[in-house]
Amino acid sequence: MKGEWQSLLDPPTLEQLIAAVTPVDEAARADAQRRSDQLAKPPGSLGRLETLGAQLSAIAHRCPPPVPQHPWLLLAAADHGVHPEGVNAWPQHVTAAIVDAACTGRSVSAVLARAAGIQMTVLDVGLAHPTGDHAHLVRRPVRAGTRNLAVEDAMTPGELRAAIAAGADAALGMINNEADLLLLGEVGMTNTTSSACLVAVATGRPAAEVTGTGAGADEATLRRKVQIVEHAVRRCMGRGPLEVLAAVGGYEHAALIGAILAAAAHRVPIVLDGVVTNAAALYAVQLQPRVADYLVASHRSSEAGAAAALTHLQLAPLLDLQLRLGEGSGALLAAHLVLAAAAVLTETATLQDLV
Amino acid sequence: MKGEWQSLLDPPTLEQLIAAVTPVDEAARADAQRRSDQLAKPPGSLGRLETLGAQLSAIAHRCPPPVPQHPWLLLAAADHGVHPEGVNAWPQHVTAAIVDAACTGRSVSAVLARAAGIQMTVLDVGLAHPTGDHAHLVRRPVRAGTRNLAVEDAMTPGELRAAIAAGADAALGMINNEADLLLLGEVGMTNTTSSACLVAVATGRPAAEVTGTGAGADEATLRRKVQIVEHAVRRCMGRGPLEVLAAVGGYEHAALIGAILAAAAHRVPIVLDGVVTNAAALYAVQLQPRVADYLVASHRSSEAGAAAALTHLQLAPLLDLQLRLGEGSGALLAAHLVLAAAAVLTETATLQDLV
Repeated sequence: MKGEWQSLLDPPTLEQLIAAVTPVDEAARADAQRRSDQLAKPPGSLGRLETLGAQLSAIAHRCPPPVPQHPWLLLAAADHGVHPEGVNAWPQHVTAAIVDAACTGRSVSAVLARAAGIQMTVLDVGLAHPTGDHAHLVRRPVRAGTRNLAVEDAMTPGELRAAIAAGADAALGMINNEADLLLLGEVGMTNTTSSACLVAVATGRPAAEVTGTGAGADEATLRRKVQIVEHAVRRCMGRGPLEVLAAVGGYEHAALIGAILAAAAHRVPIVLDGVVTNAAALYAVQLQPRVADYLVASHRSSEAGAAAALTHLQLAPLLDLQLRLGEGSGALLAAHLVLAAAAVLTETATLQDLV
Repeated sequence: MKGEWQSLLDPPTLEQLIAAVTPVDEAARADAQRRSDQLAKPPGSLGRLETLGAQLSAIAHRCPPPVPQHPWLLLAAADHGVHPEGVNAWPQHVTAAIVDAACTGRSVSAVLARAAGIQMTVLDVGLAHPTGDHAHLVRRPVRAGTRNLAVEDAMTPGELRAAIAAGADAALGMINNEADLLLLGEVGMTNTTSSACLVAVATGRPAAEVTGTGAGADEATLRRKVQIVEHAVRRCMGRGPLEVLAAVGGYEHAALIGAILAAAAHRVPIVLDGVVTNAAALYAVQLQPRVADYLVASHRSSEAGAAAALTHLQLAPLLDLQLRLGEGSGALLAAHLVLAAAAVLTETATLQDLV
């Protein structure tokens, strides 16, 4: 599989991406569990780190799994037509400002990436406001923000496919440049509104349960947000995943789905962040159920909807630090745990070696 | 304070260490909380990372706090006279074998330290079996393992002070060599039995509640272990912290207490690991309550007693990965979160800077 799409001159279609995801290797997972029990430690005493190491083995089709040498964050950024409905505490141009800050090393994500030694690519897949030019900024804007999901479908089917392709191409570019662990993050004012719609439809939970305060909505704003989500969810009744994404999704959700499919197709483990990436993952798994085995939940965001999404995905989060920032912050904070899980399986002596 | 004990030829007494711990700076903590609210992110959106950054500011007496440049693990190793009572799944010589593996880079702790770029010092404070000579092994054995706490006091008052001093000296040596974040870990077959006694006495919880399976005790072994803990706890009634430590503690507990006091006296933040380090922390805080503000709980071990100890210490753990290995594994996995918390406060732009 690797190398098949070396050239971005001929990028894969969505259907090709979906078809290219192969099953993980359950025999390698079992090998890792056995090896883990033989290491110089009580069996099971590394808890969640052991199941993570076994998952990495299953993804890599070998035990021990390779220790990721080049974790890389994809930060998908876009704006949302629902913003003027007054569902957000912050003005829309903050999205572009955060993108500039991320590219110049001053956003939280940039600080955490630097602290962890992790490279970052920022993808403009639909910003409404201008940014500067930056070395790590890839421009693939589909439109200057989605349409207003409160009154019409957020995007056309063609725009959805363009955004998915932009994310897939960005991820493929990173993988062709040696990325071997894909971290996902996003920036987009009001994208928790869109995420709440996506989570409500995918999980069947009530809008009020999966809609949160985002960047800091007050009570009246949250009430309005829940109403908009309820209304949008009703419009999605009976629709398939691509139709739902077009109706209520964001360009960054679509890009993240493309990136997830591309990484899974290349057997690259994928580290999710908060509710926006969790919402994208729900739909990537609907499009290709095999994707689920490639996903690592970095943390349980305190934003409403994240817990419901993770439960639906049957993913146990690594961290629970009451984060609700997004921007890949949780993925960046958990990446070293993924490296550690692989390193333990690779480098630790067995008990038999020692005594 | 720093530099006062530069020479280890004249190490401080326990009473000097206790007296040297000064209060943290609550004004710096408040400054950090204010600064955190001004950064380019929704207020509170980094959750536990923000309270951690504020604690680091309080410890450093300044905001933003310095980003630790030289985290360093102290692995205190010793054996236990209670081992022949049959409370452990593993033979006693495994303690020395793990020490050798740690010093030669093949133990779990060594693998995790290498993955995180963290230096390690191993302190032999009372091994019962021989090890090789290693560059990172400091030999300060008090005795070839404690006495059997099931039948007599585990150590004499003089041995207790010698073990505390060994730990303090080791930590001071590390701090004099630029350690600015002290991680704690331990190795010692059967030291969860001793820890259960210490936790039961300090928290007042029943022995059956705070005694766990350690390295893998079966049901009959666990029953025997609980009986021994119950009996030992009764012997501690009405005794002060030093007497309790001598009665049921381990040399590694004592060394960890010395290290905690020495680090707090030098305003170096201290990262605890599992139940053995949690038990040591309970007594360090009894000896000097100011110590509590210097402690960071890396994780909630799944070993019985850890949760009770952390609750008693009022410490919220950073990780909950069902770890129960010890060896500093949880501290090593959480260290980067401490660095990240400091980096965010130091390097992130304010919202006002951006928009």
